[in-house]
Amino acid sequence: MPPQLHLSPWEQGLSDQIKELKIKSGSHSPSVSMLRQAAPDIIFKIDACFLSNPYATDLFMSNLEREVIARGGLRALLEFYPAQNSTIAEQLGQTLNLRPENLFIANGATEAIQSVVHNFAKKKILVNLPAFSPHYEFAKTGHEMVFYYLDKKNNFELDLEDYLGFVRKEKPDTIILTNPNNPTGNYLRLAQMEYLLEALKEVETVVVDESFIHFAFEDPLYLPVSIAKLTESYPNLVVIKSMSKDFGIAGIRAGYGVMSEGRVKALLANGYLWNSNGFSEYFFRLCTQPKFWEEYEAIRKKHIIETQKFISQLKQIPMLRVYPSFGNFVLVELPDGYTARSVTTVMLGRYGIYVRDCTDKKGLQGEYLRIGSRSKKENDQIIKAFSQIFAPPAAAKPLWEKLFPKVPRRRP
Amino acid sequence: MPPQLHLSPWEQGLSDQIKELKIKSGSHSPSVSMLRQAAPDIIFKIDACFLSNPYATDLFMSNLEREVIARGGLRALLEFYPAQNSTIAEQLGQTLNLRPENLFIANGATEAIQSVVHNFAKKKILVNLPAFSPHYEFAKTGHEMVFYYLDKKNNFELDLEDYLGFVRKEKPDTIILTNPNNPTGNYLRLAQMEYLLEALKEVETVVVDESFIHFAFEDPLYLPVSIAKLTESYPNLVVIKSMSKDFGIAGIRAGYGVMSEGRVKALLANGYLWNSNGFSEYFFRLCTQPKFWEEYEAIRKKHIIETQKFISQLKQIPMLRVYPSFGNFVLVELPDGYTARSVTTVMLGRYGIYVRDCTDKKGLQGEYLRIGSRSKKENDQIIKAFSQIFAPPAAAKPLWEKLFPKVPRRRP
Repeated sequence: MPPQLHLSPWEQGLSDQIKELKIKSGSHSPSVSMLRQAAPDIIFKIDACFLSNPYATDLFMSNLEREVIARGGLRALLEFYPAQNSTIAEQLGQTLNLRPENLFIANGATEAIQSVVHNFAKKKILVNLPAFSPHYEFAKTGHEMVFYYLDKKNNFELDLEDYLGFVRKEKPDTIILTNPNNPTGNYLRLAQMEYLLEALKEVETVVVDESFIHFAFEDPLYLPVSIAKLTESYPNLVVIKSMSKDFGIAGIRAGYGVMSEGRVKALLANGYLWNSNGFSEYFFRLCTQPKFWEEYEAIRKKHIIETQKFISQLKQIPMLRVYPSFGNFVLVELPDGYTARSVTTVMLGRYGIYVRDCTDKKGLQGEYLRIGSRSKKENDQIIKAFSQIFAPPAAAKPLWEKLFPKVPRRRP
Repeated sequence: MPPQLHLSPWEQGLSDQIKELKIKSGSHSPSVSMLRQAAPDIIFKIDACFLSNPYATDLFMSNLEREVIARGGLRALLEFYPAQNSTIAEQLGQTLNLRPENLFIANGATEAIQSVVHNFAKKKILVNLPAFSPHYEFAKTGHEMVFYYLDKKNNFELDLEDYLGFVRKEKPDTIILTNPNNPTGNYLRLAQMEYLLEALKEVETVVVDESFIHFAFEDPLYLPVSIAKLTESYPNLVVIKSMSKDFGIAGIRAGYGVMSEGRVKALLANGYLWNSNGFSEYFFRLCTQPKFWEEYEAIRKKHIIETQKFISQLKQIPMLRVYPSFGNFVLVELPDGYTARSVTTVMLGRYGIYVRDCTDKKGLQGEYLRIGSRSKKENDQIIKAFSQIFAPPAAAKPLWEKLFPKVPRRRP
């Protein structure tokens, strides 16, 4: 009989609550505040479901406190209208060394994806699975979706030649790639991306979601990697970028797309012109400060190093299959007999740790969790919890002990 | 020779700066932060360009400070993902006594307008002019826009029969009305709206933007008026609502649309499912508290009363033509010889008061300003500034004094 988790009646109830909330919250996981409201008796400690560099949140908070709150400026961020997109694009263009005309500012990466898919995808969209669900959810009525399945035998890495063959066969007008991919963590190196882009010149729109690119690296110095600049050479390329994960500010909704000037103009003309809020406007302004950027670079590297350490510690738990990752999260496959829901429930109920149950992710065969890397202290707690849940069973008693149980010796 | 404003060289420079910023900031006015950055020597005192109940901002801030900041909860609003739209629709449905299935939560009213126009308008869109510019800016390529001009001789009030005749002639599939209208301030009473809706049953989509409805009234108690509930009887009706102006929180971007269940479903299926940020999520939750709502109602009425007082004080300045208004702003026509830009510049440069230059508003013949009503103290300062700028010229000296100037008498 395979090993199992035994849920207490309270945990069973919690499991049902999570299931119900999941249905309500659509394609994403229930938010922390939803969970808190529905199950106030959870002692919430670590949110490893959502993907965010916590040190970056610290950095943003300390700037906000010093530059805004201490100066009595919080009210102004809430009260007044933020600037329109083209104004913010100018600031961000300076920061990223990109032309503002190529930048489309969005209310989070999801809006950038949605607007690109709605405005530029024609008939057939190719998405790799498993994927971030908006990549296929945002298709409009009339769009045909085709899926290319990443192979778990190959650690979900993209086999370029096989993929290009699939593209030639299916002839999609739009393809969507995520690099590093979510939830698998696999990464296509710059040279591979360049090879792909050359081979995909006939595809009308090639969307590359680089929302996790700040956690990827190709050298021991963890220098930044991104293909955003290649939009100048490949007019069919659209690079999408969330700023929620790397900058730790999911609540303020900041993201952008990099694409040809004509496409940016088309989106602005279609009314996507005023999507920022007071806090994202402040954040984009903060990004123009060299000092902020320098401090950010240091914590970006720190988070990468700690994440890779966290992944290697998880690998030492023998019952788990831990996939390699260039994101700030890791995909973990559970052993037979364990369901993602029961482990999620136990992690939340016993340890206050919220992890991502991947049951609803298309293209994953088996039971998977996605675990976000948090601060070093939190990562250590996550490791400890998993080590306890997946402790190797106490060595089975040898047969002769079962047949001839030890009897305490009588005293002579 | 008509009266004129004489701008100092510094004011002339400021005027050019404002003009340049206006070009950069698209169809809207430059934001306060843009102005501050471009012209740091302005002593900024009152923003009467943007339309917002300042007492509501006070109320929101005091709740945010007590419930969030004092409890150390600010970080969570910035760090974590907000809930998706359908979750927020449930809360707002309770608050507004509307079915959540009829509610579409948006990143500000502009997103609601844009999504409705993009997804439901077919070929021909009718907009009344002057109007809030997104109502015609959000049309897609292929949409034909037709304009119905409100007549200034009639205080820009809508002549229902003439309008219905125009609709019958033009046969638009989508019409957009704003009630109260911006920037004119004119208001269609509930009975008039019902009459219109009955007569417009053949029009596929009737959008009514009620973003200023909280400042309108039909009785001496200023009881709330809205046709949102009529979406249940008129499936072609879409009511749009910004929460920026009445709740004083333009920076957090909160708005919604009320429409048939099928239309809400269609929008959610098209990917408009995750548009709120941490602060708007908190605000929607705050709205479910009866205590907040009670306090809000009191300051809503207070702001209406003060606004109507402000308008009647402005009317006492003989050189201005002040239009009646049911919004929290007032449209003012300048006398001959004064341009909206020069008055805007002088208001900003000499008094630190920012008003809306309406030069770019389609459908206004003449020179107009739109002036937002602020707190009583600020309104008094605005009145004072206008009274000084438009002071009646000193009484001309009688002819005999010019011919026989008074000579001081010699002492005997």
